[in-house]
Amino acid sequence: MDVSQLSEFGLIERLTRIVGAEGSPDLIVGPGDDAAVWRVGSEYLIATTDAMIEGVHFLPEHARWEDVGWKALAANVSDIAAMGGTPLFALVTLALPPETPAEAMDALYRGLAEAARKCGAVVAGGDVVRAPQVSVTVALMGRAAQHDDEPLLLRRSAARPGDVIAVTGTLGDSAAGLRRLQARTTADDPIVQRHTRPVARVEAGRAAVEAGLRCGIDISDGLLQDIGHICEMSGAGAVLRATDVPLSDGLRAAFPDDALELACTGGEDYELLLIGPAAAVSRVPSVTVIGEIVDGPPQAILLDGNGSEIKFARTGWDAFPS
Amino acid sequence: MDVSQLSEFGLIERLTRIVGAEGSPDLIVGPGDDAAVWRVGSEYLIATTDAMIEGVHFLPEHARWEDVGWKALAANVSDIAAMGGTPLFALVTLALPPETPAEAMDALYRGLAEAARKCGAVVAGGDVVRAPQVSVTVALMGRAAQHDDEPLLLRRSAARPGDVIAVTGTLGDSAAGLRRLQARTTADDPIVQRHTRPVARVEAGRAAVEAGLRCGIDISDGLLQDIGHICEMSGAGAVLRATDVPLSDGLRAAFPDDALELACTGGEDYELLLIGPAAAVSRVPSVTVIGEIVDGPPQAILLDGNGSEIKFARTGWDAFPS
Repeated sequence: MDVSQLSEFGLIERLTRIVGAEGSPDLIVGPGDDAAVWRVGSEYLIATTDAMIEGVHFLPEHARWEDVGWKALAANVSDIAAMGGTPLFALVTLALPPETPAEAMDALYRGLAEAARKCGAVVAGGDVVRAPQVSVTVALMGRAAQHDDEPLLLRRSAARPGDVIAVTGTLGDSAAGLRRLQARTTADDPIVQRHTRPVARVEAGRAAVEAGLRCGIDISDGLLQDIGHICEMSGAGAVLRATDVPLSDGLRAAFPDDALELACTGGEDYELLLIGPAAAVSRVPSVTVIGEIVDGPPQAILLDGNGSEIKFARTGWDAFPS
Repeated sequence: MDVSQLSEFGLIERLTRIVGAEGSPDLIVGPGDDAAVWRVGSEYLIATTDAMIEGVHFLPEHARWEDVGWKALAANVSDIAAMGGTPLFALVTLALPPETPAEAMDALYRGLAEAARKCGAVVAGGDVVRAPQVSVTVALMGRAAQHDDEPLLLRRSAARPGDVIAVTGTLGDSAAGLRRLQARTTADDPIVQRHTRPVARVEAGRAAVEAGLRCGIDISDGLLQDIGHICEMSGAGAVLRATDVPLSDGLRAAFPDDALELACTGGEDYELLLIGPAAAVSRVPSVTVIGEIVDGPPQAILLDGNGSEIKFARTGWDAFPS
C-alpha cells in the first residue's frame, strides 16, 4: 500500500501509533493537537513544526521569497496561537540546491525574520542542507498561558455539546488570494496579501484562554476540515450556519459565486476556531459565532438559511489527495 | 551569486546575520553552536534540528528505512550531547511522495522510535507533508545540566591555549562503513553499523560538564573540520597528533592505507571532542587525548610522528562543495 491510499490524517495516525509517545510524565499534550506541550520545571513549553516545500506549498513563479519565509514562520505561530500560547523561539531548517541564488535565500530569511519580530519570536538556530528543491521547515517553541501551576490550553478534544463555535476575522480570503496570484494579479491586492502574508491570531488565542475557553484549532486546512478534527477529537458533532460565516467585502466582490465555498474549504486562513460556553465566548473580542457543538456522530454539517445541508466536493487540504 | 560559491558555513553566517538573534534575555546560546539554549523559568532548554534528504544524506538502495529513521534522530541527540545536555522530546517532519510505500515509512518510524527510546527521548509531535523525495527533519529539545541557577554547557567558543583536546571512542568507522555499504557488504559488519546506527555520546557529554569542562563539539562533519569550528569560535589554534587519533582494529584491517584519512575527514562519527584543562579532561572516563589548543591563528594542524604536517584534500563534509 502506498501513502496516497491513506489520507494525510490516516498516515499521521498510523505513524503516531508506532512512535508511542505515552509514558513521559512531562508530556502534557502529544501528537494529534495543533502543537505538543511539555512541562519544563514550573512552566509549560508549546512546540510545533511546519514545512513549506517548493512545488507543493509554493511555486517560485507565484511567490516572492520574502513571502515564503514570512509564511513558513507565520504558519507555526498560528499553531502556538491555536493552543492559547505565546511564541518564543524558532529553529529553521533550510534545504536548497547548490545553484540557488544566495540573494533569494537572503530574501527568504528577511521575510522569516520580519514575521518572527512581528510576534516577538527569535530565530535561535537551525540547519542548512542540500536538496533537489528549496524547502523551509520551522520548529517553533512557545510558552503556554498558566494559572498557578496549571497550563491554560486550547485543546482539540475539549468541545462539549451546547458549546458555541466562534471564528476570528474573515474566511476564504487566502484561497481567493491564491486564485488571484495564479491569474497573475499584482501582490498589492489585499486579498492576495491575506494569502502571502497571513498574520496569526496570537492575541485572540491568549484572550480565549483568559476568557476561560479550553477548546480551539487554527484554520489551516479549511473550516470544514478543521472543525472536523474538533469533532473527531471531542467525540461530538458540529452544526455550522453558512449565513453566519464571516466573508470580507473583498472576497464577495472578487468571487461572488464561490465566496462561501472558498471560506469553508479554502484553507490557509490562519484564523482561530474558538469553542466553549456562549458566556465565555462572548468575553473574547472580535469573534463571530457561526454554529454549535451537538450530541451526535463526530462530523460537521453546514446548513443554509433554510436549514438544508450544503455539501462541497472537498472539505479542505489533504497532503495526499486520492 | 549562487550558494555553491559560498561554503555551507559561509551561507549559514550570512543568513544568521539577517535573522539577528540578539536581543532576547532568555536566549543563552544562539546560532553558531551545536544547539541553541533558551532559559525557561529556572531551567535551560537545549534545542537543535537536523535533516536527512533522500539522494543527499542517504540512498534508498544502500540504506534500510529503519536505519534512516534511527540516524535522523541520533544525529540530533549528538548535538544535545555536544552541549552536555540530556534529550527530552522530538518533533518530526516527514516529507514524502504519494507513491511511497506506507510500510517503508512504518520502518522509518520504527527506527526513529528505537533511537528515541535508547536515549530516553519521546516523539511529541510533528508534521507530514508531500514532497518530490523522502526527507526527515527532526527538532530535538533537551535539558542542560545545571549548577544552582547556572547552565553547565559545552561551548564551541570556550577553548583556551594550553587546553588539551580529547575524543570519545574511535574515529573513521562510519566513513569506512559507508564505503563498505557502497561496495554492497552486508549490514552485519560492525563498521557498517557504525555508519547506519550511530550512538550519540550523551553520557560522555554529561560526564564532561560534571568534570568541569566547558568546551566541546560533536564530530559530524569530520575531525579536522569540527576542530576547525572550535578554533574559529574560540580564536585559537589546535595541534593534533596523528599517532594518537584512535582507530578501531576493524578500520585498520579494512582500510589499512586510508584509515587515518577516514578518521580525520570522514564525518558522521558522532563522537565528542572535549576540550579543557588536562586535569579536568582526565576526570572524564574513556577518552583519548589527541592534541592541544595553542596560541595562534584559528586553524588546526595535524602532525605525524616526526612533527611534519599532514594535509588531506578535504577536511570534511560541506553541503555545497565548490
